[in-house]
Amino acid sequence: MSSVSHRQLQVQPLAEIGQLKIHGRTTGELAPLTLFWTGSAVELNVRASELWMEAESGYDHHESWISILINNVPVSRQMLNAGRHWICVFRGMNPERVKNIRLVKEVQAMSGDPGCYLQFHAVRTDGGFLPVEDKPYRIEFVGDSITSGEGVIGAKAEEDWIPAWFSGVHNYTAMTAEAVQADYRVVSQSGWGVLSSWDNNPQGNIPDIYEQVCGLLTGHHNEALGAHQKNDFGSWQPDVVVVNLGTNDDGAFHSPEWQDETTGQRYKQRLKEDGSYHEEDLAAFESAVTKFVGKLRTCNPDAHIVWVYGMLGLSLMPAIYRAVDTYIKSTGDRNVSVFQLPDTTSETIGARTHPGLLAHQQTAQELSGYIRGLLSGS
Amino acid sequence: MSSVSHRQLQVQPLAEIGQLKIHGRTTGELAPLTLFWTGSAVELNVRASELWMEAESGYDHHESWISILINNVPVSRQMLNAGRHWICVFRGMNPERVKNIRLVKEVQAMSGDPGCYLQFHAVRTDGGFLPVEDKPYRIEFVGDSITSGEGVIGAKAEEDWIPAWFSGVHNYTAMTAEAVQADYRVVSQSGWGVLSSWDNNPQGNIPDIYEQVCGLLTGHHNEALGAHQKNDFGSWQPDVVVVNLGTNDDGAFHSPEWQDETTGQRYKQRLKEDGSYHEEDLAAFESAVTKFVGKLRTCNPDAHIVWVYGMLGLSLMPAIYRAVDTYIKSTGDRNVSVFQLPDTTSETIGARTHPGLLAHQQTAQELSGYIRGLLSGS
Amino acid sequence: MSSVSHRQLQVQPLAEIGQLKIHGRTTGELAPLTLFWTGSAVELNVRASELWMEAESGYDHHESWISILINNVPVSRQMLNAGRHWICVFRGMNPERVKNIRLVKEVQAMSGDPGCYLQFHAVRTDGGFLPVEDKPYRIEFVGDSITSGEGVIGAKAEEDWIPAWFSGVHNYTAMTAEAVQADYRVVSQSGWGVLSSWDNNPQGNIPDIYEQVCGLLTGHHNEALGAHQKNDFGSWQPDVVVVNLGTNDDGAFHSPEWQDETTGQRYKQRLKEDGSYHEEDLAAFESAVTKFVGKLRTCNPDAHIVWVYGMLGLSLMPAIYRAVDTYIKSTGDRNVSVFQLPDTTSETIGARTHPGLLAHQQTAQELSGYIRGLLSGS
Amino acid sequence: MSSVSHRQLQVQPLAEIGQLKIHGRTTGELAPLTLFWTGSAVELNVRASELWMEAESGYDHHESWISILINNVPVSRQMLNAGRHWICVFRGMNPERVKNIRLVKEVQAMSGDPGCYLQFHAVRTDGGFLPVEDKPYRIEFVGDSITSGEGVIGAKAEEDWIPAWFSGVHNYTAMTAEAVQADYRVVSQSGWGVLSSWDNNPQGNIPDIYEQVCGLLTGHHNEALGAHQKNDFGSWQPDVVVVNLGTNDDGAFHSPEWQDETTGQRYKQRLKEDGSYHEEDLAAFESAVTKFVGKLRTCNPDAHIVWVYGMLGLSLMPAIYRAVDTYIKSTGDRNVSVFQLPDTTSETIGARTHPGLLAHQQTAQELSGYIRGLLSGS
Repeated sequence: MSSVSHRQLQVQPLAEIGQLKIHGRTTGELAPLTLFWTGSAVELNVRASELWMEAESGYDHHESWISILINNVPVSRQMLNAGRHWICVFRGMNPERVKNIRLVKEVQAMSGDPGCYLQFHAVRTDGGFLPVEDKPYRIEFVGDSITSGEGVIGAKAEEDWIPAWFSGVHNYTAMTAEAVQADYRVVSQSGWGVLSSWDNNPQGNIPDIYEQVCGLLTGHHNEALGAHQKNDFGSWQPDVVVVNLGTNDDGAFHSPEWQDETTGQRYKQRLKEDGSYHEEDLAAFESAVTKFVGKLRTCNPDAHIVWVYGMLGLSLMPAIYRAVDTYIKSTGDRNVSVFQLPDTTSETIGARTHPGLLAHQQTAQELSGYIRGLLSGS
Repeated sequence: MSSVSHRQLQVQPLAEIGQLKIHGRTTGELAPLTLFWTGSAVELNVRASELWMEAESGYDHHESWISILINNVPVSRQMLNAGRHWICVFRGMNPERVKNIRLVKEVQAMSGDPGCYLQFHAVRTDGGFLPVEDKPYRIEFVGDSITSGEGVIGAKAEEDWIPAWFSGVHNYTAMTAEAVQADYRVVSQSGWGVLSSWDNNPQGNIPDIYEQVCGLLTGHHNEALGAHQKNDFGSWQPDVVVVNLGTNDDGAFHSPEWQDETTGQRYKQRLKEDGSYHEEDLAAFESAVTKFVGKLRTCNPDAHIVWVYGMLGLSLMPAIYRAVDTYIKSTGDRNVSVFQLPDTTSETIGARTHPGLLAHQQTAQELSGYIRGLLSGS
Repeated sequence: MSSVSHRQLQVQPLAEIGQLKIHGRTTGELAPLTLFWTGSAVELNVRASELWMEAESGYDHHESWISILINNVPVSRQMLNAGRHWICVFRGMNPERVKNIRLVKEVQAMSGDPGCYLQFHAVRTDGGFLPVEDKPYRIEFVGDSITSGEGVIGAKAEEDWIPAWFSGVHNYTAMTAEAVQADYRVVSQSGWGVLSSWDNNPQGNIPDIYEQVCGLLTGHHNEALGAHQKNDFGSWQPDVVVVNLGTNDDGAFHSPEWQDETTGQRYKQRLKEDGSYHEEDLAAFESAVTKFVGKLRTCNPDAHIVWVYGMLGLSLMPAIYRAVDTYIKSTGDRNVSVFQLPDTTSETIGARTHPGLLAHQQTAQELSGYIRGLLSGS
Repeated sequence: MSSVSHRQLQVQPLAEIGQLKIHGRTTGELAPLTLFWTGSAVELNVRASELWMEAESGYDHHESWISILINNVPVSRQMLNAGRHWICVFRGMNPERVKNIRLVKEVQAMSGDPGCYLQFHAVRTDGGFLPVEDKPYRIEFVGDSITSGEGVIGAKAEEDWIPAWFSGVHNYTAMTAEAVQADYRVVSQSGWGVLSSWDNNPQGNIPDIYEQVCGLLTGHHNEALGAHQKNDFGSWQPDVVVVNLGTNDDGAFHSPEWQDETTGQRYKQRLKEDGSYHEEDLAAFESAVTKFVGKLRTCNPDAHIVWVYGMLGLSLMPAIYRAVDTYIKSTGDRNVSVFQLPDTTSETIGARTHPGLLAHQQTAQELSGYIRGLLSGS
């Protein structure tokens, strides 16, 4: 497979290429490869003059976008139309030199679009492949719209909720991983929290779907693609798990109640008259944090678990500290910590009043410093 | 045409849309619109939820790339495969809000590829169009690979000469124009100079093709598209003409002779034994500069003409000053000046040992300051 | 007093100038004025061509340094030799224009030098004085060497503990106050903590001396100067109290025991065998934090109290959060919060392995953003 | 002399210390040492716990200022009162470690103040001295107020012409020299030019005084100090001479005539009615530039001579290029070039509408890159 022949373009199914490196949680299936989460990617080292990749994209509402990196530099970023298409990754290059190529999913898994999926079937090239080395470390990021890179792209005035404004590449996750030399995965969803989504929907919580490959996806097609399979944690154990959740849990306190249409049950995180969090509801949030840390530990026995918070305000930070404290005291597990991220300012904000590129860069700088400390101390 | 109807996507030929704004030299033809030069663009204000653009691209060797800007922010950058394709510019947006859209040619006109062209035929949208305002000023940039943005994209180690590494958007031309609030056009070609190209080919000179729409293109198809038509200078008079040429003329002194295969004539800008420029050949360069300034003045009677130089070394600067001096003394035309650009350093270099993004930003900052002075003084 | 006469320099005792503004805790005495803490200053608006200030400085070990600011820009920084000296602040300036002048103590109060003091007796000028306006807000900073600006000045390799490396001007306290438009005061001491100093000396705690004007000074002379008087909190109530303590309390866990020579008693914050904090000793630290917040509240009934931490590591942050939580729960006082400061890195470090200028700037940027939020929310 | 004894402070006249390094043109006299130009300095390596320096300062109008650098970091900056004073450079430091110390004259030679001088007589220390190594290169800077660092210190609103706003340390000369690892000297005077001063005084030209140690000083005292002695060029030959003159020559075109009170002769660089330079007067300027380059070459036979210009506008740049061209053509000496400096902007301006710290930093960055090219090419 790594023999080099430059004469003619040959199609090869992904499943027949031994030296692919897949980033992000998948089912392991390569025929075709389905990428679920933002930042998920297919990476390869290829000695060739030309390379095409066959992608398949579908959606009811929200189309997929990808970025192409050549030798670690973003070169192309594009919307994928529905259907199966050959994408030219590069052409006209020196056939003797090896290129590192990465096609990255720029958009989060779409819990609200049962028809949304992104797949890669095959490559077409005149060359051959070489192995891709692993980075020294592995990080898993778990989060919400911030971690999905919502608002990194686009003018500050943009208000539409569309995939175009998301980025997996210009994202603190990618930058932090690069800074500490880590492979990384992302599990994230806009609007979701630890206990509920920003609008009090109790199903909009990350912990419930954490153990599946991509449990928040809906629809028969995604189920058939294996999104609901149990994730194989044994195959990829991170050195660090970064959880960036809480922002939407705070939102729930400030949003109207959510009613379950089937049961009629109403859900609402309450504020007291003086504007402070209602103790019972705050306790429910803290309990959810404590439990989620426990689940993360079960799935990732040796990882440093770091709960990060603060890019869009700090109001739940004391509760997060308490909840993590409770976890540590009840388990004796001291490999868990809390780290405050820098707040987004009028200079660093992006589209849709979300953190912009500068905010992600600042977060990556501070977070990578903190993670470097964890990794060197262990 | 500017009435708004959001129900269904309707195809409209470009020629039927009254409110388009076209950037860059064209023949005026809209059925279809051919974009020749880097930085050329079609711009429109559209009130719609969705917009597609039908592009047609062809090439023998060098494919075209475009960037899409939404509300002045780059959102997508992609290679265009050969053929006629519908490109989705945006979808799923608020149908009531007006978006400013710009599709920009990222790659220079390709003198070496007679089959290379880029066209736009039609739009498909559920909305209507509004007028695009002109900027207060107009600038024309004339240059070589630096002005073509060669090397702005890509890793520093890249050596292949391919369109992927060019950018019209992340380019000092675009940044300078933005900083001084100007519409702008670019006339540029990698390897070309005032007197000859870097390899002493006397046909690789910009002055000879300056008066045509895009006179350096070859092939019957480009001729049929009107590339060789006389440019209608009267229709678009710049306030400032920036000429960034000389770097390849210096290269000619350090490159082997070029032989015209039909006439057998040899061309060579000579160095003396001590490494200095041969006086006769330097004089030929200066004469070419002086004449080109005269031609620029003929075509642009009221513009400030600024010869800029220095992003890749300063060796011909004294000759440029002399040549411009000669022009001024012989004509009394004092609306011509010379401005040194900041040199590219190991920190600011990009791909293919060309100025990188940081070099273009630094140049734009200094050049826009200088141009602001010209514009406020006039 | 504010009449202007430029003919001759006239000496005026400070006590006779009605329009002085004194920064920092003092006894109120102006004949002479004693400045105790770093960042303390005498500020005045003067319409004159020349101004001198009579300073008196004494020390057994550690000399005083001052900076002079003219119209808010540092112009001079100098060591004060022992004795009584006239310092020329400015000369040769336009006698008709008003200058804002500030002489700032650059060095902390020196608990280890009973002979150290800094006083101002009189001015000599050809002009007159005008009132100095108050800023819209007031902040009090309480801290250790970080807050004393230790290491802001000097090469990274410097290791000597000398006053030259301290600065009250190039200090996050001054920068933060400037950014939020606040007058400010500093109470700080290198090596000290909430419970004890870095070397386990229980007397090296800030809470015990907080209520006095400058209770950590020793010696008969300082006592005679009123350092041990009760501070008049009513005369200057801050909008925000920032406490930056804990770094030396962590140091105590990693330092040998301290023995009280008179009583023979030994003091030691203990680590457990696994390197974690001993629970009892950590509880003692937390109790000290909780109590100190209570004392701060008593002295500053309406202030936002913000405990900040993290410029030299985060290890005690969970304990600080717990301790503040305990305070809030037991009192219902919700006007207290915790804010993490950015860690110092190899790029931002200064002399003596303390935060350098860049670290103070970064802290000021983040802390001022946080404080702005507090002030706008109240 | 380099033996180390830390017990008691000993006074040593400068003339008895073998290992001093003197920066800037002097007469060679060390008993005492007179520093004439800005950036002039006395540098020493001392192994001691304490060091004092005996300075003597005098003036009729403009006092001297010095900066003290310890291990290459500015630690103190102060006005020197008239008279002879001991200045404490450092105290309380580790007696075993060697400190590099530099006392730098912050203010230019004062042509307008016959009474102005700065001297150093002796040191007082408990330690001994070690040799100071030379840097690999040497640069001489020749210029006007820009090169004197006028306006680097102070608020933008400052308008008084006083020594406080000058700096030799925060100056592009010092920064450029540091960046290219060069020892350096400065010859500069506010208001002066190549042909005349800004107000058309023909005596305000640098070329006439260039060959003396400090020929622009006046008064018997300065003459007695040797200011008018012929400079010993043989003792210190620069690798590069940077001339930053022309800004005041442009000013002369825009200022009223100057009348010589003794001869009654009037001097005026004229503008034509259309605002352009009068040809005869421009020719006089160019002739002065050409001649000065010749004088610089005579004095510095092997140096790269670089005429730099542009920090406060570019209007005379074509004339400078012509004049240097004339020199090169008439002599064949090609080791002379012209380099444009970045213009000062509203962001980079300092006090007195002169370049501020940011402007000096930007100039140093670009100029040091250019000089590095010269030095590596030779």
